[in-house]
Amino acid sequence: MAEEKVDLSNFVSVNDFRKHALKVWDANTSSYYESGANEQITLKENLDAFSRLRIRPRMLRGVQKISTETSLLGRTIRTPICVAPSAMQRMAHPDGEAANMRAASTDAGAFILSSLSTTSLEDVAQAGPNTYKFYQLYVYKDREVTLNLVQRAEAAGYNAIVLTVDTPYLGRRDSDVRLKFKLPPQYRLANFDNALLAKRVQVSQGGSGLQEYVASLLDANLTWESVRWLKSVTKLPVFVKGVMTAEDTTLAIEFGADAIIVSNHGARQLDTVPATIEVLPEVVAAAAGRVEVYLDGGVRSGTDVFKALALGARAVFLGRPILYGLAAGGEAGVRRMLQILNDELKLAMALAGCKQISDINRQHVVHVSHFSKL
Amino acid sequence: MAEEKVDLSNFVSVNDFRKHALKVWDANTSSYYESGANEQITLKENLDAFSRLRIRPRMLRGVQKISTETSLLGRTIRTPICVAPSAMQRMAHPDGEAANMRAASTDAGAFILSSLSTTSLEDVAQAGPNTYKFYQLYVYKDREVTLNLVQRAEAAGYNAIVLTVDTPYLGRRDSDVRLKFKLPPQYRLANFDNALLAKRVQVSQGGSGLQEYVASLLDANLTWESVRWLKSVTKLPVFVKGVMTAEDTTLAIEFGADAIIVSNHGARQLDTVPATIEVLPEVVAAAAGRVEVYLDGGVRSGTDVFKALALGARAVFLGRPILYGLAAGGEAGVRRMLQILNDELKLAMALAGCKQISDINRQHVVHVSHFSKL
Amino acid sequence: MAEEKVDLSNFVSVNDFRKHALKVWDANTSSYYESGANEQITLKENLDAFSRLRIRPRMLRGVQKISTETSLLGRTIRTPICVAPSAMQRMAHPDGEAANMRAASTDAGAFILSSLSTTSLEDVAQAGPNTYKFYQLYVYKDREVTLNLVQRAEAAGYNAIVLTVDTPYLGRRDSDVRLKFKLPPQYRLANFDNALLAKRVQVSQGGSGLQEYVASLLDANLTWESVRWLKSVTKLPVFVKGVMTAEDTTLAIEFGADAIIVSNHGARQLDTVPATIEVLPEVVAAAAGRVEVYLDGGVRSGTDVFKALALGARAVFLGRPILYGLAAGGEAGVRRMLQILNDELKLAMALAGCKQISDINRQHVVHVSHFSKL
Amino acid sequence: MAEEKVDLSNFVSVNDFRKHALKVWDANTSSYYESGANEQITLKENLDAFSRLRIRPRMLRGVQKISTETSLLGRTIRTPICVAPSAMQRMAHPDGEAANMRAASTDAGAFILSSLSTTSLEDVAQAGPNTYKFYQLYVYKDREVTLNLVQRAEAAGYNAIVLTVDTPYLGRRDSDVRLKFKLPPQYRLANFDNALLAKRVQVSQGGSGLQEYVASLLDANLTWESVRWLKSVTKLPVFVKGVMTAEDTTLAIEFGADAIIVSNHGARQLDTVPATIEVLPEVVAAAAGRVEVYLDGGVRSGTDVFKALALGARAVFLGRPILYGLAAGGEAGVRRMLQILNDELKLAMALAGCKQISDINRQHVVHVSHFSKL
Ligand SMILES: Cc1cc2nc3c(=O)[nH]c(=O)nc-3n(C[C@H](O)[C@H](O)[C@H](O)COP(=O)(O)O)c2cc1C
Ligand SMILES: Cc1cc2nc3c(=O)[nH]c(=O)nc-3n(C[C@H](O)[C@H](O)[C@H](O)COP(=O)(O)O)c2cc1C
Ligand SMILES: Cc1cc2nc3c(=O)[nH]c(=O)nc-3n(C[C@H](O)[C@H](O)[C@H](O)COP(=O)(O)O)c2cc1C
Ligand SMILES: Cc1cc2nc3c(=O)[nH]c(=O)nc-3n(C[C@H](O)[C@H](O)[C@H](O)COP(=O)(O)O)c2cc1C
Repeated sequence: MAEEKVDLSNFVSVNDFRKHALKVWDANTSSYYESGANEQITLKENLDAFSRLRIRPRMLRGVQKISTETSLLGRTIRTPICVAPSAMQRMAHPDGEAANMRAASTDAGAFILSSLSTTSLEDVAQAGPNTYKFYQLYVYKDREVTLNLVQRAEAAGYNAIVLTVDTPYLGRRDSDVRLKFKLPPQYRLANFDNALLAKRVQVSQGGSGLQEYVASLLDANLTWESVRWLKSVTKLPVFVKGVMTAEDTTLAIEFGADAIIVSNHGARQLDTVPATIEVLPEVVAAAAGRVEVYLDGGVRSGTDVFKALALGARAVFLGRPILYGLAAGGEAGVRRMLQILNDELKLAMALAGCKQISDINRQHVVHVSHFSKL
Repeated sequence: MAEEKVDLSNFVSVNDFRKHALKVWDANTSSYYESGANEQITLKENLDAFSRLRIRPRMLRGVQKISTETSLLGRTIRTPICVAPSAMQRMAHPDGEAANMRAASTDAGAFILSSLSTTSLEDVAQAGPNTYKFYQLYVYKDREVTLNLVQRAEAAGYNAIVLTVDTPYLGRRDSDVRLKFKLPPQYRLANFDNALLAKRVQVSQGGSGLQEYVASLLDANLTWESVRWLKSVTKLPVFVKGVMTAEDTTLAIEFGADAIIVSNHGARQLDTVPATIEVLPEVVAAAAGRVEVYLDGGVRSGTDVFKALALGARAVFLGRPILYGLAAGGEAGVRRMLQILNDELKLAMALAGCKQISDINRQHVVHVSHFSKL
Repeated sequence: MAEEKVDLSNFVSVNDFRKHALKVWDANTSSYYESGANEQITLKENLDAFSRLRIRPRMLRGVQKISTETSLLGRTIRTPICVAPSAMQRMAHPDGEAANMRAASTDAGAFILSSLSTTSLEDVAQAGPNTYKFYQLYVYKDREVTLNLVQRAEAAGYNAIVLTVDTPYLGRRDSDVRLKFKLPPQYRLANFDNALLAKRVQVSQGGSGLQEYVASLLDANLTWESVRWLKSVTKLPVFVKGVMTAEDTTLAIEFGADAIIVSNHGARQLDTVPATIEVLPEVVAAAAGRVEVYLDGGVRSGTDVFKALALGARAVFLGRPILYGLAAGGEAGVRRMLQILNDELKLAMALAGCKQISDINRQHVVHVSHFSKL
Repeated sequence: MAEEKVDLSNFVSVNDFRKHALKVWDANTSSYYESGANEQITLKENLDAFSRLRIRPRMLRGVQKISTETSLLGRTIRTPICVAPSAMQRMAHPDGEAANMRAASTDAGAFILSSLSTTSLEDVAQAGPNTYKFYQLYVYKDREVTLNLVQRAEAAGYNAIVLTVDTPYLGRRDSDVRLKFKLPPQYRLANFDNALLAKRVQVSQGGSGLQEYVASLLDANLTWESVRWLKSVTKLPVFVKGVMTAEDTTLAIEFGADAIIVSNHGARQLDTVPATIEVLPEVVAAAAGRVEVYLDGGVRSGTDVFKALALGARAVFLGRPILYGLAAGGEAGVRRMLQILNDELKLAMALAGCKQISDINRQHVVHVSHFSKL
């Protein structure tokens, strides 16, 4: 990627960042970042499902001052817009995870770092000492490796462990298989010294190198007991990321989860699962206030955030938008992208008659099909 | 805009006027007049929602003579088709608001003038001394300015004050931001002597000049009490423009509104709010006959008017169609556009078996999904 | 239209005839035959609504011999596929209505002649002495003219009068208005000697010549009493063509109609009325077996016919397909088009497990939305 | 078809095989293999209906080891993915049915051979001596011919007779009619010595040669009694292929069917019948566990298989995908295609939390419209 100076003032929406990123990334990178599983039906649905929801705006609520402040597990955050974990961010921009963390420190509510980062978890933590930050965990077949990651995350100051439960195997993203995706040689999985763990993703034995990495090294035999185990080896709160049903919500709570992230992994795992915003209501209902529920998947605008909050999410996390932001000049790009989204959220709140996050409620959103009941 | 003679007899529908306007306007003007907020989902829906309604036509009703006469707040008007307020009409045609008023005098039921007109409210009033006319009010942070506008409107003979409640901030229309929209230097907001109030909209500090105007000068802290205040400072009836929910309908009535205009500001404020025709039934039900309900948004044909009336609107207001009309030769263009719509309404009434406005009722319209209940 | 020899064996569906016709007709003719009212939403819906219905096929019913024989008002007809009235058929092919009648004699169940034919009703009758034939009536302001038409129809051997009730005014078909449609000078409305009645349609005073004809000469003041009057002046059965609601079905029966044709005039009158196949069930239910119900509008294939019969229509009538057939070589074209449709109907019956028309019932069709109730 | 070496490692989905096949087949072959009846509405629906179903994935189920093993009529099979009968497979590849059988021996659960094969049923059987295999029967007007086929199938080791009940006549596939489809001269229907039975399909008398073959030679007068008769002349289990309603399910069971295949013949018979996956639930409900229910039609991916099983099918059969596979190098092509589908099924099971086929249940699938009930 030839580094050319980007004029960020020309970007007015997340979509502008996306268009720019797809122009500057090479095919390997674009394929890995953009793809969804198989036919990419859920990929499209993750966005379309937001478009099918309608905001019922309330007027004359005195909205001169809007605050997006809220809290996560009791800690105050400036905005419910947070950063989702995505692997190997230095492919998006040489400054990668650290740049992302720096931007998040000032403009996001919280930050999740992926296990598969191209910057070590300690270095990333140092880039955002005061940031509310969580460490996303993939469980390796070798439990020592796993334990070591958890302990280092604790030591580095992460505030929670985010257990991703939707990836016993990597989903099949056709274009990655076709292109035999691999991590470029100049980068490595920076959380590992062990050559196998750090570099296996730089080669392909015929399909996606990442798919092979996951299949050979990660533990596909996790059960809900694994949550209990994780709780037993760390004092940090444990979030379960990847819940898509009421049934699993109940189990997650039963086995000790401290929060739930409704996620379909950006539509990258199993194609034709529902859009996350569609299953949010059933998860929120099953959680019944016992744990906080967050959401990621397809959030691209302030009204998307508004809708997720109205349906009961306490926060939303951004996957690809962060990568688009990185592509537009690293830290500054992510920051501007986050600012646009925060401005859009504020405007949506004002125009819907909500001065603060707690004003946003279930009455503010209906499905478009509501209006066919004429 | 090079003034070329337009042959109006070639225009057979509102859409013909639209196509012509988009050809003759420059990018700044087209963007400002045509855009909706953000992704423009509601912009499309405002029109599509009408297409999803079906008219149930009744036969053999003796429809030789059709009358579109009706009344607004007790005053007889020749047609329920009226003119919505839109800002800065001289951009559409040099004759602007006055030409529009002259056309409305003969061919519309009523006329609303925007606060942000490029012709003074007094001059516009003089162009239509006998027209049923209303003054649309934006409340300035400086209450003296506001009061002065109301008093001048009363003095100039306006018959009601229309309080727009959906614009504490201007909605974000991406292309206006991109183009850094400003009012061309030859025009000014003609209701103000104060240079700031009149000309702030001629500059941009990085985005839409109008957005900056609204943010810096208008009062974003209005509440329902503001309606009560407005009622206390004027003897004119007060309409509340921008209601989209049953809840706000109830509040509007409680705080003294004399009529309600269901409007989403032409889909220019908050994207993904419902189409106006979709929420009309809930507003009409909540009003329960206590105040009259009008509608604007997406009305482009006689059948659209018919459907709005069937669902309980007493009148409809036209935003963009007026501007398209202006573009086709000023007064004559608006007049011909209005005549086409009135002819279409008459024909729709005849073919649906309605001799007069009061014959149009709830049984005449169903949602297309009604027919999937086979 | 240059008469070139057409190889009819290359036509395998109604759509093939349509494509050919649109190639050989001039703009004036294509516009008049193809157009629907205004935005042509109902025009599209008339066809699409059939596509949204699903046939539930039954197996192993011993379908070696299929019969399409049925009866209309007690008279046996070889097929429920009949010919709808359309005006001025010599524009489609010089042999016009007579060629159409000859084809119908052998391959359709019944034939309706339009009041506005370019061949006299007597000449058409003579072309099909044994055909089951009906005369479509437009009521002229001059009741003598009307009476005269009815009496001549009786004398010429027509078996019923079909009163079209959906045309107090002609619907607005934008392209006809744009093109200032007129009947070409070599043809005239052949049922009239009076120059005004015969030729007024050959000129335009600014819009569609036919629209002006209807507005100036036909009676827009018909009521249900007019049905009673018509019954009083003829011994023939009277069909009411253009019923679209349960309410009007009840009235039609009350005022003496002998049969009802569900029709929206080929989507040429009021745009955004429902597709005819969509309202058929409500009309059939309201008729409750007291009179026979027929349908026209959008019938283009054997499965369309099957669906209409399954939903309670006793016969279907073809408008445009007849004109497409004429365009492909007059009588032979219409005949081949009818044969294709009849073959398709037979095949549909066989594959759905119906040996005879009376085997087709309500259980054979469901709306596609039925399957979303999973 | 010029035989060029195909690199199968570049094929990552069934759709890749399809694209390749459409490139290498001539028009006659492509038309015959790809077409659906008439407007091809059901053809599209057979695929789209799968896309409208959503998988509800369950997490943390310990899915290291996935087994697709299941059973059909008590016999264990390695996968529920089986091969549907399709006629004249040597048009797809010179090795035709035998190559297909060899691939199925190792990678499919079972195999059905068409009556109209271009390799004799004995030769095909020999290509897969240990394969679980069924013989698809068309009943000839000449019952001796039919009986002979059944007896030879028994003798050759087929494990069941599959009676296709949806083809009293061949459906009308417009492009076959247009192209006057015939079997190329180098091939014949290899189950017959009789020249008429073997070669009538190599000529056309004006339309599709196969349509004429079916009309002149097959028995269109079958009834449910024919199932009873078939049961009386063979000791093999009899499957009924082509059931699309609850009513016929009940009859099939009543008349002795041992299993039911929900099928609309790949949308090639009656256009606008429902997609097979849409009617599966009603058939499964009517079968009520008394016989096994299988499905074919539109299965193109592992998630399609998963959905069919979740809705109660015990196995699925592939029609066109097999032909696409053949086109990509005969046996090896079919095998790789089957492996891709089996891998996709395993991955879908893992990501949905199912270790074995019996874990897949009704709770795993909802229709997308479920989520509009917000
Ligand atoms: C390129 C990419 C890499 C990802 N890597 C991880 C990961 O390492 N761990 C994880 O839990 N989720 C990962 N995700 C999923 C995200 O955390 C998140 O669920 C998803 O991206 C949200 O959807 P969105 O991209 O539409 O915002 C990744 C997503 C993308 C797009
Ligand atoms: C260019 C433009 C300017 C507008 N300016 C105003 C305004 O100054 N005050 C106001 O209350 N509404 C304003 N509106 C909203 C209109 O009054 C009306 O609600 C809307 O245009 C109706 O939708 P339609 O354009 O689809 O007919 C404006 C609309 C447009 C298109
Ligand atoms: C060109 C044209 C002329 C028509 N003229 C008449 C007419 O003179 N009288 C009448 O009752 N209906 C008339 N109709 C309506 C037809 O009788 C019929 O209702 C309609 O065409 C059926 O729809 P279809 O064209 O989709 O089959 C006409 C329709 C067309 C297309
Ligand atoms: C080219 C072709 C030939 C077929 N021939 C037969 C046949 O001879 N006998 C039969 O029972 N079904 C036949 N079928 C139907 C298939 O068995 C099966 O029902 C259908 O192809 C499944 O749909 P799919 O193609 O979408 O997988 C044929 C299908 C195709 C595409």
